[in-house]
Amino acid sequence: MRPVLIGIDGGGSGSRAACLLPDGHRTEVTGGPANVSLREEALNNIKALLVALCTKAGLQREQLAEAKCHIGLAGVLEDQGAKDIAVALGLPKATMSDDQITTITGALADGDGIVVAIGTGSFLGRKQGEHIRRIGGWGLALGDEASGAWMGRRALSLALKSCDGLAPVTAFARRILDRFDGAAGVVRFSLRAAPSDYAALAPEILQAAGQGDDMALSILRDGVGYLQAGIAVLDDTGTCPVCLAGGLGPHYAGFLPHDLKERLIPAAGTALDGALLMAARNAEFDP
Amino acid sequence: MRPVLIGIDGGGSGSRAACLLPDGHRTEVTGGPANVSLREEALNNIKALLVALCTKAGLQREQLAEAKCHIGLAGVLEDQGAKDIAVALGLPKATMSDDQITTITGALADGDGIVVAIGTGSFLGRKQGEHIRRIGGWGLALGDEASGAWMGRRALSLALKSCDGLAPVTAFARRILDRFDGAAGVVRFSLRAAPSDYAALAPEILQAAGQGDDMALSILRDGVGYLQAGIAVLDDTGTCPVCLAGGLGPHYAGFLPHDLKERLIPAAGTALDGALLMAARNAEFDP
Repeated sequence: MRPVLIGIDGGGSGSRAACLLPDGHRTEVTGGPANVSLREEALNNIKALLVALCTKAGLQREQLAEAKCHIGLAGVLEDQGAKDIAVALGLPKATMSDDQITTITGALADGDGIVVAIGTGSFLGRKQGEHIRRIGGWGLALGDEASGAWMGRRALSLALKSCDGLAPVTAFARRILDRFDGAAGVVRFSLRAAPSDYAALAPEILQAAGQGDDMALSILRDGVGYLQAGIAVLDDTGTCPVCLAGGLGPHYAGFLPHDLKERLIPAAGTALDGALLMAARNAEFDP
Repeated sequence: MRPVLIGIDGGGSGSRAACLLPDGHRTEVTGGPANVSLREEALNNIKALLVALCTKAGLQREQLAEAKCHIGLAGVLEDQGAKDIAVALGLPKATMSDDQITTITGALADGDGIVVAIGTGSFLGRKQGEHIRRIGGWGLALGDEASGAWMGRRALSLALKSCDGLAPVTAFARRILDRFDGAAGVVRFSLRAAPSDYAALAPEILQAAGQGDDMALSILRDGVGYLQAGIAVLDDTGTCPVCLAGGLGPHYAGFLPHDLKERLIPAAGTALDGALLMAARNAEFDP
């Protein structure tokens, strides 16, 4: 009999789980943050997620223990105790990876290509068969170029530079300064801002860039420059298909140069789909 | 009779006080951090500083109360209660400013010119008689280009980019990666690093740049580019004298282009000298 498949996608801002029954019925639930660096919180949130999933899918406890499961967790590579986590969750046979692997697998499914994942953070990955090479994903303090957090921080930085006479005073720069009650308010905000706080500005930056605002456009141009350089490192032939993933990835499409735009392929699925796919593969390889 | 003059320079990493007696005798003491945003700590540290100063200079309590005093404090412009601070310190007649003003006054004394102040943070200021115009000083999250903290953060960021194939793998990049036990160690450091932690790398970056390391040189070049742009905004004639101040400022001299190097003038004094000078001016204007 085909097994029950379970996929879990746990990230710093929330987690999702999906269950695929042998009859093809799929159930999804969402829950709280699950970053391995906050281990207790992550464990508790994923346990709650599994309870919710079983209830919604009508799954018995013994079915859960026998299910084929893959868990993609932010930061799991840093943690030597991935196996411990699986055991603590009552899923001793579950396989685990970081959420970048499930994102790449979800986006490309069985195909090969480059995934440009842009949400609050960013990374690039190239998949060739079983081999995956990654670039970036180092976090906002030192990297995450082109990401939502990077875009937001850059917008505030450029707004301050416009006060100094070192950047153009565009309509968008004025709007930001007004919103934060001037330069001093922007600086106050920056003293406590988390990446997600900066990323909250991204939709407005994309909108302003779409309307032709020079400051917003310069942010997008720099972001695209980073993505181009990263794509070139991953594939110097300039022919590999490119998939824009993550909450913001697809929004970059309109700002890419023509040759890159022609290489775009749609994402096959999300990181959660990737986790389910990896659970299915584990099932096939099982003796 | 000429009054006793007292100058105080309070910053985020430490504070200094100086007293100039009518006979020309000068006494200096140093103490703990004094940033207005941590008001209680700042008050306590400056009170301790004043006690130490009186003891060392042989100053009586009544002489202190009658002294002419100027206090330069980091962040004081944000604080509406500057007068309250002076009263709380038992120096109700003291004048106050932020520490950028005392830095500029110390560096240029009675002269005019541009001050480029580079320590853990950075700012630029131009003084023309009584008028001072400033650029930068917004903090590391959104600015402080060319500063020690900015240099250190950039070095770590470039070291990670060298792992990604997006920056040259220089000897200095390898040294940094070894020191932090690889890319993951660099990222871990960045999650908790304060500006002063990044700035601690600055001396080594300057040394590597002096030895011709491409990565270190690229950091200095970008820093110089920012300083050049700022200087051009403050003086478009390209003739105004420029003074490199702060702990790192003078170290930039060797990396400046020839035309800018020719405009350099030595700093007349420190921010503490600036505070004493402002106290002396207050004394002269007193009825």
